[in-house]
Amino acid sequence: MTIERTRVDAEKLINFSTKALQKLGVPEEDAQITARMLVTSDLRGVDSHGVAHLNMFYARRIRLGIINLNPKPKIFSLTPATATMDGDQGLGFVIGHHAMMEAIHRAEKTGAGFIAVRNSTHFGAAASYAMMALERDMIGVTMTNTVAGVVAPGSTKPAVGTNPLAVAVPAGKKPPFVLDMATSVVAGGKLEIARREGASIPEGWAVDKEGKPLTDPTKRVLGEGGLLPLGGTPTLGGYKGFGLGVLVDILCGVLSGSSASILWKTTPETRGNAGDHFFGALRIDSFLPVENFKKSMDEMIEAFEALPTLPGVKKIYVAGGYEAEIEKDRRANGIPLSSKVIQGLQELAKELDIEYDL
Amino acid sequence: MTIERTRVDAEKLINFSTKALQKLGVPEEDAQITARMLVTSDLRGVDSHGVAHLNMFYARRIRLGIINLNPKPKIFSLTPATATMDGDQGLGFVIGHHAMMEAIHRAEKTGAGFIAVRNSTHFGAAASYAMMALERDMIGVTMTNTVAGVVAPGSTKPAVGTNPLAVAVPAGKKPPFVLDMATSVVAGGKLEIARREGASIPEGWAVDKEGKPLTDPTKRVLGEGGLLPLGGTPTLGGYKGFGLGVLVDILCGVLSGSSASILWKTTPETRGNAGDHFFGALRIDSFLPVENFKKSMDEMIEAFEALPTLPGVKKIYVAGGYEAEIEKDRRANGIPLSSKVIQGLQELAKELDIEYDL
Repeated sequence: MTIERTRVDAEKLINFSTKALQKLGVPEEDAQITARMLVTSDLRGVDSHGVAHLNMFYARRIRLGIINLNPKPKIFSLTPATATMDGDQGLGFVIGHHAMMEAIHRAEKTGAGFIAVRNSTHFGAAASYAMMALERDMIGVTMTNTVAGVVAPGSTKPAVGTNPLAVAVPAGKKPPFVLDMATSVVAGGKLEIARREGASIPEGWAVDKEGKPLTDPTKRVLGEGGLLPLGGTPTLGGYKGFGLGVLVDILCGVLSGSSASILWKTTPETRGNAGDHFFGALRIDSFLPVENFKKSMDEMIEAFEALPTLPGVKKIYVAGGYEAEIEKDRRANGIPLSSKVIQGLQELAKELDIEYDL
Repeated sequence: MTIERTRVDAEKLINFSTKALQKLGVPEEDAQITARMLVTSDLRGVDSHGVAHLNMFYARRIRLGIINLNPKPKIFSLTPATATMDGDQGLGFVIGHHAMMEAIHRAEKTGAGFIAVRNSTHFGAAASYAMMALERDMIGVTMTNTVAGVVAPGSTKPAVGTNPLAVAVPAGKKPPFVLDMATSVVAGGKLEIARREGASIPEGWAVDKEGKPLTDPTKRVLGEGGLLPLGGTPTLGGYKGFGLGVLVDILCGVLSGSSASILWKTTPETRGNAGDHFFGALRIDSFLPVENFKKSMDEMIEAFEALPTLPGVKKIYVAGGYEAEIEKDRRANGIPLSSKVIQGLQELAKELDIEYDL
């Protein structure tokens, strides 16, 4: 199946998304932040977290009134390196951006900064925030909880979300190390795509309520069975992925003092809007000189890339390396958007009475 | 196969191990720290990292002269929350204990403390250090790199170690959350046990140099193929486990400024002695009141334990819950040691001319 795609310039896409968000009532600066975050995902090839969701996901939520467009985030802090933030139900991109900047500012002063956030909303891809640390020669960490969809080993009901964690580490000449992973075998979006395309899914991604492998995604019943945690079965370490998922819930939900986000409490009304996050930054030069660190990172990445490969494997990638190649292409040649996404953006333009200029 | 085991009192085991280590030349306080760390693992059922290794692993290394028994660790720090430590090739338990205390002291002052350590040696189980944060109402983090034995997805040679990470989080009435996991599908010890017992290993643990599943552990060739990263095959998320393994190498090896420990540099002489670590502590009350946090942890753990189970599954455990049950039993009834371990300790006693009083 070939999907027709049109290449769209990244800066134009940011401008268009900013205008659309402003028309939806988002203040200019916040609209710019959000648009940049969305397009950062598109540039890196993470199409599932980019402008494809602008209309049906974020615009819809704004119209439903479940996002506070003029939030007044509150910070609680007793110590220089750490703080808790209440996001006042603001747009996740905006709250996330402020919280990550707060972590970075604290790391500038003390070497480390960690912020737990409650009452935020969906913030897109975790990597976008962790990567804010890179140009400041810091290591960035970002996590978020999501609605429960992953079963605990030995259980039949979803217990934790796909709860992604992201870590970004600068290198020198090589692309940065950027790990952004759901703590489940796959992110929920992959089942959704298979369902839409009428495709089956590999054994090991999900189970039904009897714990049996689910390979027909149309047979998934919400709340019964679910995705498997990273590792899969207990024999192959599924309890590790589950442990990582619970850890993300602890740092995002429990440590932030959230009352709604411990996910087994999520009600149908709050479903999908769960948004507690955790942000961290470590100043590299408070451990060793930055140039030594970056040189060592380059050497390490080059050594991985020089590993012998199995037949059919072109190159060994370190996390973020593949995305960096995509970004280089998309910055030069534009972001390929499917006709369906283009159509969604055109409809949004019409509805909001803004020019469609992509 | 039934292995005969003798129950041994934990305090007696600590005293015996302390005496043995002192006779080997370890200063009294350091011997006590080491003995406590070893027996902490035995109490929690992590027999692979307890006194079973005292003779053939640690005593042997001390005799070989590859551990500095009177190290002078050096600390480099520019910032209140973070530091780098050079372990001066000291006993990993002692260096690890000091470094974790350093992280805790910094967290007391700023809310967060992170220490990267180079030039240490094997420190036993990562959880023992992370758990030092618990009684101080902090969250503890510990990682260590280990000798390369895990293949990168698509490659045929070991690229990273099993590189474990541990996180400990206090709860209220419930046992603490303690996640201690290799970032590979299984720890290396599990292959070793299968080889000794003449057993096969499940498909999905390891591959040969052609990337084919290795199920006969006697056919493993060091340096060719290896353990799979957590997740297993690329389809099931093996690149995530590999990413986590690389992250541990970055935080332990690169961030500490180690020159020897980036594991693809490890030579046969330094094999198994690679010891760069990473320690962290977060003060809970710098995020929210400790009692609120602990109440929320209890509620979360109870909700997980109340999840419906598959037939044959008695209980859903959260990380650390099973180990807490074992510890309760072993504190009351003693630690079961196999006749082989007992024999090793008796030989050590004879050789060092100390009383065997277990």
